Amino acid sequence: MVFFKQINIQTGERTHWIDIQSQVEAVVADSKIVSGICLVSSTHTTAGITINENADATVGRDVFWKLNQLVPCQDAYHHSEGNSDSHLKTSVVGLSVTVPVHHGKIIRGIWQAIYLCEFDGPRMRKINITVMGETAGP
Amino acid sequence: MVFFKQINIQTGERTHWIDIQSQVEAVVADSKIVSGICLVSSTHTTAGITINENADATVGRDVFWKLNQLVPCQDAYHHSEGNSDSHLKTSVVGLSVTVPVHHGKIIRGIWQAIYLCEFDGPRMRKINITVMGETAGP
Amino acid sequence: MVFFKQINIQTGERTHWIDIQSQVEAVVADSKIVSGICLVSSTHTTAGITINENADATVGRDVFWKLNQLVPCQDAYHHSEGNSDSHLKTSVVGLSVTVPVHHGKIIRGIWQAIYLCEFDGPRMRKINITVMGETAGP
Repeated sequence: MVFFKQINIQTGERTHWIDIQSQVEAVVADSKIVSGICLVSSTHTTAGITINENADATVGRDVFWKLNQLVPCQDAYHHSEGNSDSHLKTSVVGLSVTVPVHHGKIIRGIWQAIYLCEFDGPRMRKINITVMGETAGP
Repeated sequence: MVFFKQINIQTGERTHWIDIQSQVEAVVADSKIVSGICLVSSTHTTAGITINENADATVGRDVFWKLNQLVPCQDAYHHSEGNSDSHLKTSVVGLSVTVPVHHGKIIRGIWQAIYLCEFDGPRMRKINITVMGETAGP
Repeated sequence: MVFFKQINIQTGERTHWIDIQSQVEAVVADSKIVSGICLVSSTHTTAGITINENADATVGRDVFWKLNQLVPCQDAYHHSEGNSDSHLKTSVVGLSVTVPVHHGKIIRGIWQAIYLCEFDGPRMRKINITVMGETAGP
């Protein structure tokens, strides 16, 4: 069984760390799949997806601050759109995460949440969610 | 249904950013799978796989230039083969991407393409493509 | 068919590069799945999963040394637990790897092994292994 849905997320800043765990969990519930995997993928090249701590907002702030220090917006880039840093940061954090689905739910660690990493916002972002596996028997 | 194929890509430089979208799409078409996922994985440890912009070649140039500035080839490394930077860069961009397959095609954003990231070429690289999902009904 | 198992790995240092290939292969063998994929995922936010060279231990040493130079433990972070570097490094190397399963085994390159990347140990880490695909016919 394969279930596919695209969701929209409006970001609010040039760089924005947004918890999308609840939106992804709603799609997994809709899918009726009880056992398998869930792939959460960005359809963009300047916004990525990662998993990180859901408890203390300073984690996301530190992650983005340090990443920005390593890959600054202004540098000796050739790409004319002024967002080469966004493209590199996206490949560094990755464009998707894949998580297990077990007993009808995403299996995650107690501190984990799935984050959309906006690196060139604010924009409306489209995220693809693919759930694949087994539904409950008849 | 699972369809597995290995493809070969010859790289031309020590670091080389190569669009492999069309080769991957050809394997998905061969698979006859209409709905599911496609996993594209490097069989190496000094060449990775990522997704990034397919329109302007300066993006790949900037991504590799900045990555090389952060992780230079020459540094106080212990590994004797002179490619410790290649190993780290590979883990940073990642060794595989997984993308949704829907209506028999890879679903991708308009600016997205799948790239082989060569970090220690030129070499012949082997890339595994695994397509898994449902074929059309009888 | 979906097979799910959680394994425990005890790490020994704050940063620790641990080959978990044999543990993952044992789960794939238990699953009886002959064709499909294997998802290896960290349930944490300060320990990641990657693939890299299994032959020369200086590779892991260089990878961690350089990563630590780029993202030092001590910096102008706001998160009070003193492990903001661990959170960023985890998102940089990634929290999971997905590998093909073919003829009942993980398909990997000759130099590849799956590594647990401990960035805030020593701790007992829980790793989820999800194998999905086809079992042999009757």
